[in-house]
Amino acid sequence: MNCSVAIQFLPMDAQTDEETCAIVDEVIAYIKSTGVKYFVGPFETAIEGDFDTCMDIVKNCQLVGAKAGSSHVMSYVKINYRPEGEVLTTERKVGKYHPEDPELHGQI
Amino acid sequence: MNCSVAIQFLPMDAQTDEETCAIVDEVIAYIKSTGVKYFVGPFETAIEGDFDTCMDIVKNCQLVGAKAGSSHVMSYVKINYRPEGEVLTTERKVGKYHPEDPELHGQI
Amino acid sequence: MNCSVAIQFLPMDAQTDEETCAIVDEVIAYIKSTGVKYFVGPFETAIEGDFDTCMDIVKNCQLVGAKAGSSHVMSYVKINYRPEGEVLTTERKVGKYHPEDPELHGQI
Amino acid sequence: MNCSVAIQFLPMDAQTDEETCAIVDEVIAYIKSTGVKYFVGPFETAIEGDFDTCMDIVKNCQLVGAKAGSSHVMSYVKINYRPEGEVLTTERKVGKYHPEDPELHGQI
Repeated sequence: MNCSVAIQFLPMDAQTDEETCAIVDEVIAYIKSTGVKYFVGPFETAIEGDFDTCMDIVKNCQLVGAKAGSSHVMSYVKINYRPEGEVLTTERKVGKYHPEDPELHGQI
Repeated sequence: MNCSVAIQFLPMDAQTDEETCAIVDEVIAYIKSTGVKYFVGPFETAIEGDFDTCMDIVKNCQLVGAKAGSSHVMSYVKINYRPEGEVLTTERKVGKYHPEDPELHGQI
Repeated sequence: MNCSVAIQFLPMDAQTDEETCAIVDEVIAYIKSTGVKYFVGPFETAIEGDFDTCMDIVKNCQLVGAKAGSSHVMSYVKINYRPEGEVLTTERKVGKYHPEDPELHGQI
Repeated sequence: MNCSVAIQFLPMDAQTDEETCAIVDEVIAYIKSTGVKYFVGPFETAIEGDFDTCMDIVKNCQLVGAKAGSSHVMSYVKINYRPEGEVLTTERKVGKYHPEDPELHGQI
């Protein structure tokens, strides 16, 4: 696995926290639908997989969020990429901080 | 609670993933020692509290990481601040995505 | 000079681009008033100086922006810090890309 | 023009500032070669154009940087996207801060 990415999607025109969360939840639902491993945090959702897959998901998140009703998007993306190697997995990075989180430990 | 912040601390001079994780773990241990609510993600750790406390922690993270051995730091910080109001809590944002994570649901 | 920082201030509740730019301009005016070297870019303003000064400016930017009328702030901050050394100056990094920009070449 | 993006490319395995700058310069040279309007800042390079073009450039920057010799990349990307509208141009955002920068005012 040569890539992991973290995506924060901000619907700039949302007028309430509820509206923001509703649109962000649709973007997260899309990410889940792709089947990649993902981990939702308070400011961004992290995914891991091969580079092309991750880049496609970054692009599609913007389109999904726009379709969900956001007419002005600001997204913040972190790309961690090892062309010839392996990036650290989410489980390796944060498993010890969430020992009882089944999602993180591949039990879901 | 008028502020939440997410901090990614990158020790640029670390030569291995293990070295990176060791220094990052010291920064997270410092964050834990402050007593604020925190949530560790694969690319950043989120904290929440009042604005001044959060800004002090952002600053101290750099000093703690330097003391832990990093001679060149790149940090990426997100600041979510409502001067007169309440920001969304981490639990409100991501609780539904980590239903069995006791840390998140205030059971620790 | 052991620190350089880049700050993006997003007034989340601004309803128009003009309103956003007006508040951002007030934050940039504050940065200018501090006397540190600064460089305005389309998504962030970079400053350079000693660590404490830079951290104070990061904190004050949020307060200045709030005072300028933003009731919900999202800021994105990059911190480049060498506890014992010198960080690359803005001029060293981008001077060659803006050869005729007097501001960058210390002529202002 | 519905999209503008800012890209910071960090070659994590570069051992010196010179090595970092050399690889970053190759990524900027690629961006220049695409023909889109671009603006180089100390922590990121901003581009503007249509959404698909911008997303392709984000992806290719990682590949170009890897080819330039970076075996571990961390990139930080800001995406500003209006599906049905116009984003603010770089010139509109920062022209007044760089009045004598011919590159910014479309004279190059």
